[in-house]
This record gives sequence, C-alpha cells and structure tokens, in this order.
Amino acid sequence: MAVETIASTVSASTDFGPAVALSCRECAERFPLGPIFACEVCFGPLEVAYEFPSGDPEGLRKRIEAGPHSIWRYAPLLPVPADVASKPNLDPGFTKLVKADRLARELGVTGALHVKDDSGNPTHSFKDRVVAIAVEAARNFGLTTLSCSSTGNLAGAVGAAAVRAGFRSCVFIPHDLEAGKVVMAAVYGGELVGIEGTYDDVNRFCSELIGDPLGEGWGFTNVNLRPYYGEGSKTLAYEICEQLGWRLPDNIVIPVASGSQLTKIDKGLQELVKLGLVEDKQYRIYGAQAEGCSPVSTAFRAGHDVVRPQKPNTIAKSLAIGNPADGPYVLDIARRTGGAVEDVNDEQIVDAIKLLARTEGIFAETAGGVTIGVLKKLIETGQLDPAAETVAINTGDGLKTLDAVAPTTGPTAIIRPTLDSFREAGLA
Amino acid sequence: MAVETIASTVSASTDFGPAVALSCRECAERFPLGPIFACEVCFGPLEVAYEFPSGDPEGLRKRIEAGPHSIWRYAPLLPVPADVASKPNLDPGFTKLVKADRLARELGVTGALHVKDDSGNPTHSFKDRVVAIAVEAARNFGLTTLSCSSTGNLAGAVGAAAVRAGFRSCVFIPHDLEAGKVVMAAVYGGELVGIEGTYDDVNRFCSELIGDPLGEGWGFTNVNLRPYYGEGSKTLAYEICEQLGWRLPDNIVIPVASGSQLTKIDKGLQELVKLGLVEDKQYRIYGAQAEGCSPVSTAFRAGHDVVRPQKPNTIAKSLAIGNPADGPYVLDIARRTGGAVEDVNDEQIVDAIKLLARTEGIFAETAGGVTIGVLKKLIETGQLDPAAETVAINTGDGLKTLDAVAPTTGPTAIIRPTLDSFREAGLA
Repeated sequence: MAVETIASTVSASTDFGPAVALSCRECAERFPLGPIFACEVCFGPLEVAYEFPSGDPEGLRKRIEAGPHSIWRYAPLLPVPADVASKPNLDPGFTKLVKADRLARELGVTGALHVKDDSGNPTHSFKDRVVAIAVEAARNFGLTTLSCSSTGNLAGAVGAAAVRAGFRSCVFIPHDLEAGKVVMAAVYGGELVGIEGTYDDVNRFCSELIGDPLGEGWGFTNVNLRPYYGEGSKTLAYEICEQLGWRLPDNIVIPVASGSQLTKIDKGLQELVKLGLVEDKQYRIYGAQAEGCSPVSTAFRAGHDVVRPQKPNTIAKSLAIGNPADGPYVLDIARRTGGAVEDVNDEQIVDAIKLLARTEGIFAETAGGVTIGVLKKLIETGQLDPAAETVAINTGDGLKTLDAVAPTTGPTAIIRPTLDSFREAGLA
Repeated sequence: MAVETIASTVSASTDFGPAVALSCRECAERFPLGPIFACEVCFGPLEVAYEFPSGDPEGLRKRIEAGPHSIWRYAPLLPVPADVASKPNLDPGFTKLVKADRLARELGVTGALHVKDDSGNPTHSFKDRVVAIAVEAARNFGLTTLSCSSTGNLAGAVGAAAVRAGFRSCVFIPHDLEAGKVVMAAVYGGELVGIEGTYDDVNRFCSELIGDPLGEGWGFTNVNLRPYYGEGSKTLAYEICEQLGWRLPDNIVIPVASGSQLTKIDKGLQELVKLGLVEDKQYRIYGAQAEGCSPVSTAFRAGHDVVRPQKPNTIAKSLAIGNPADGPYVLDIARRTGGAVEDVNDEQIVDAIKLLARTEGIFAETAGGVTIGVLKKLIETGQLDPAAETVAINTGDGLKTLDAVAPTTGPTAIIRPTLDSFREAGLA
C-alpha cells in the first residue's frame, strides 16, 4: 500500500464532527486537527475551532433534548463524531443541578442558588468529561496508550475510561502518593508508574516522553490531547443552561486550577448565545482558588495581567497548580464579565465542605469546599449580588479527600447501649 | 379543634399513591398503612400492598418514560404520592446499566452481560433508593427524626437524605468504627451517636428506643419504616427491565445481606409482568453471599428451608448480616425461579473487584465483588447458563472499601524521572 493511501485512509476515518481546525489563542493561526497543543508560530496554546450549523436553534435544541443523558447529547457542539454515544465509553455528564435553597438561606442569598454536582460522574469528578473527549481524539488519531500525570482525580478518570474504551493506559504519579490515592489510580489495572521525584518532576518526565520515540502512539490527555480534552468542560456550561430551561444564570462560581475549566465554560456559554440556544444577557464569571495556591486571585486583586507562579501549600490538592497555564485568560474573563477571582484558606475550605454537606446533603471534595467557601466570601464582601441567580460548581467527591474533614468530624455523643444513657445525652 | 378533626386532617394529608394497605407475608392479614412492621396476628413481616390501575400498559409505559431520570419515574408503582418528585429529596436511581462485553469475555459469557451500577447514586450506594421511600413514609406519618443503625452505606444515605428533605437525623453506630466510615456518617451534620458495644448491641438499643416514648416521632428506616423502605429496591427491577427495552433478563445476580433487596427485585419483576409492561417468561434469581457470612447459601446448598444464623467474618461488611430477616424468602425465590444462592471467599471477592475494574472501569465496593465473584463461580460450576442474558448488580462504591484492595493494588513500576529508567522498566 502506498504511503498516500495509508494517509488518506487515516484521514477518511477521522471524524471530529463540527470541529474544523486548531486555532492559536494568541495569534489566531490555524492548524489541521492533530495531536498537537502549541502554536508553531508563537508557541501559544491551541484550541478547537468549529463550524456550527446555523439558523435552526429550535431544531438543535430538540435534537439535544432527545439525546442521551450524558455529555453526548451535546455531540453537535463537541469535537466528536455524531455517533460517539455508540462507542464504548463511560458516558459521563448530565449530572444533577441541585436547587440549593437551604444553602442559600445560610449564605443570605435571596436569588436562586444552584449547585452543579459533578461528583455524580462515573469516577466522581468532572475529569470524566474532559477525558471522554480526549479518548475520542485518541481514537481519531489512532493512538493506543492513554496517559497522564496526576495526583488524584485525573488518574482514576483516565484509568477507568481507558478500560471501557479499550485502550492501554499508563499513568504517572509521584512515588510517595498516599496509599488511598494509589489504590484509586491502580485499581483499573493499567500501568501505574511511580516516579521518584516531585509532581513537577513527573510532569517534566512526561514532556520528555512525549517528544521521544518511546512515546509514539501515546495520548497524554492533558498534554498532546489537551486542546480536545479541555473542550469537555464546555459541557458544564451547556448542562447548566439546559437544566435552567435554556437560560443563562447571572453568576457562575468555578474552581481554578490550570484555569482551563473556567475558560471553557465561558466559551460554552458564548457558543450557546451565538447559536441562539439561550438569550443573550450579562453573566458574571467568578474564579475560586485556595489561599495556599492563589496565583490567579492574587493577580486579580493586584490588577495584574500576568500571573506570578506560587509554590502550592493547601489541602485543596486538586487545585494546587502553582503556575496555571490559563491564568491570564481567567483574569480576562473575570474582568470582562464583571466577576472576580477570590480565595479562601484551608479552615474556610473545611467549613465550606461541611456547610454544603449539612445544608444540601452533598459531600464535596476540597475543590468543592473552595468553590462554596469563595461563594460565601464573595457575598460577604459585596462582590456577588445575593439577589441574582447563581450556580456554584462542585467538581469532585468528598470520599476522595476524607482527610480534610476527618479531624473535625465525629460523633456528637458516645453512649452506653441503654435508654438512660441516651436520655442523659439529651438528643431525644 | 376536636380530636376527630385532627385525625381526619392527618388522614387527608396522607398520600401513599397506589399503596392501600400493609399485608403480612406469612398470614396475609391486612393492616392500614402506618409506621408498623410486624403482623399483630402472627408477628410475620409486613409488606406494602397495592391497587394498581390496570388495562393500559402502553399508557403507563409512556407515562414512566416521560418521567424524571430518577426512581420517581416509577411513582405510579411505589408507596409515594404522584407529585413526589417535586418534594426536596436526593432524586436517586436511574443509574447506568452497563453492557459488560469485556467482563463477559473474561467469564466465558456468550450471552449479553450487564452490570447495573448503583454506585452512581447520590451517596454512591443502592441505599439511596430505599431511604428515599422511607423519607416519603416519614413525611406521610408526620415523623420528624430519621434514624437507623448502620456501619456504613445506610448511615450516609440517611444523613444526606435527611438534610435534603428537611428532617433531623440521628444515626447510631458502634463507637469503634473506622475513622473514614465515621466521617462519611458524620459529615452531613445530623446527630451521630457512637454506642459502646457491638453492632448487635446497637440494634438491640434501637429496638428498645422505638418502643419507648423517647423514640416518639422517630422513623427508623430499617425498623418501623421497613415495609416502605424495602419497596425502594423494586426500582432496581423496574430500571433493569426498562433499560433492556421493557424486557425481562434471563438471570439476575443479587447480593444478599438481609435478603430484602432480592425479594423486592422479584416482587418488582412480577409486578411488571402483571401490569403488562414486560412479556412474561422464565427468569432465574441468584443470590450472592460472602463465605464469611453465608447463612443463606449454606441453607440453599443443604436443601434447608430454615436459615441458621452465623457470626459474620468477612471483608464484605455491608453484607455481614448473620441472621438475615428475609433469608427464607430468598431460598423460596431462588428455588422457585430455578436460580441458586452461592458464596465466595474474601480472596475471591478482592479478585472480583479488580476483575470488574480492569474489564469495565467500574470500581465496586466489597458487596459488588461478592456479586461478580459469585457470577464467576456460578458459571464455572454450571449453575448459570453463560449463553443466557444476565444482569449483575453492583450495589456500592469502591471508594468506601479501599482497604479491601489496598494491600494488593499498587504501582506496576517505580522509576527515576528519566527516559532511560522508563526504558528499563519495559513499559513503552
């Protein structure tokens, strides 16, 4: 078979749905869809560009509503083939949007408050959304090994998604990760490699591997598949608006690690407006960080456009990215929409986890505590209008970060197994 | 206000939908719907009796399909008011039915194999289903405190459901429970009482409390609300059949603790047949136990009708009920349908958890390991036809029983952060 024939075969089997190119966020240069992530001209980050069908918002809305109860209902807006739902995958998404009336009362919110609870995903974090899109890209590019560096949620999401979709997986972690997190990463049976070094060493190693022939056929979800991977976060925007009855909320509070999720939610909201699926109106985007890793909120407060890296030291480990790639874009979006980027300390994070649990019955991981804690602070400091409609995103599950609340969460009483002892405890 | 007026007010606000009475499973004596659980005539267990609308299966099917994506789509078949979905609750159910082709291949199953994955529920176990029905009964009876004894899943399910539905909760646990489980039970902020004693002591105490004025206004989900609570498990049967396209499977493999879930799934399947929602055909029900707590499988093998209590000693703690209330009914159903009750040991349980994780990307708790392990054994011993269509139920989440797999689940390699070191590991 001639080389051209092979190439055209590969090309013919490639189907990214409405996605037509990769586009540089800095210089707007365009590239064919491929497993690349940086602009060849200016080294800026690449993102997926689309050509959406236009003119029939009602038809598109109906098509979405008739779709599967997963992110695949939005296949017409994602870099995936139209028949994506029929391929074996974890079917993440369409998680619950919980009307949080009790939390609203505690926070003094008089408008509608909702929690988008992404702990309902298959491996209990929003990472299942982004990994699912990366898996489809890997299929398109004929890659055979799914990989990532991770200290938590992403490892499990990649491991589980690889199994379901029929990929080999190889996940890299720091060798001294806590036992529980190692189990969550290892249980899906893929290769799990402990690296003798810090998380930064792990990332450096992954970048080396990707440039080496050893890494041929490998798809790193958050490196060479990153432009596709990131698009998965748009589905949070789509779901929130659809679940509100095809309406934009006034405010969205979003945790910021690399900042990718926040920028993609904004992208998703704008697409919905452009496509006529929701009516245009002002919305404000708020970013939430932990004080112990707050490069973006620090820059926001200082009025800077540049984000100065920090060395993370916070219990919100899933947000502990000291040098966030999308930090400057987060600043842009928060300022453009009239939002803000704020942070809370570890004690406030723990308090917020408990607040959400005791008001709404949702047990969030530390990142969720950051979001709810920042929401509280935004209201208290007058940065967020309590009479507006607000959505706060819980990105993960409290079962994965039990240590955060364990020291301050215990029985209200210890009694002997008698009615007298119970009566004395004063709980009847 | 006269006493009669109060009584009729209470009665008027009581709405159990199609449920009309409690009926004794032993002597068939009927009682008005109330917070009672034992027959006044023969002390047999009570269950909910219904008067279903008949004659229009197609209309009922359409009504269900247009309903919410939770157990409430089956409100017409449950002891709940028709508008139940509008009351604040966790909206459990309608979890994924996963076509388990890779698992099937490993097990030598040539028919269709499905895993009903109930780890997708709000607190990640099937207990959210049963508690949700108990909550509606508690609303109907004007009870104000939700309670239970538990060592795990039930505590979290009750704690979270109480918060969402606006009840006080008070959960009783053995005082020496592992720290992680205490956190899961305590984080929702209700009362959590550690009892100095064994789990049996906790249960004895709860029975005493329920008979005492101290326990007035209390709803114990698995005691005085047990007849309602149990009905929640019927929704597993409804969902499985609907997700198969309104069809009965050939085999269902179900974990057995008290045995309630298995008996209610059988009840649900029979209702679907009677209502004309599925076509009648033979189905076989299989019960799955852990060898370390196998009173029902032991009785099944011995051909006994009576279940002899055992002292549990197994890693599958959520199934460790040594004296299962519904054991004899489980035996009846397994024998009547041509199924079986089997057990596997702790090592087989761990192997099965890993097998499910590495074939389907589903991380099950130990009870799920019991189900998959027993499925494997049933096939190997010729008790289950591998050419038939089988559904296995995973009732909970591996994140809650990390200890079971931790000792044998770890990195495949530890390397230095260099390509040479990676090359030496032979994983490229």
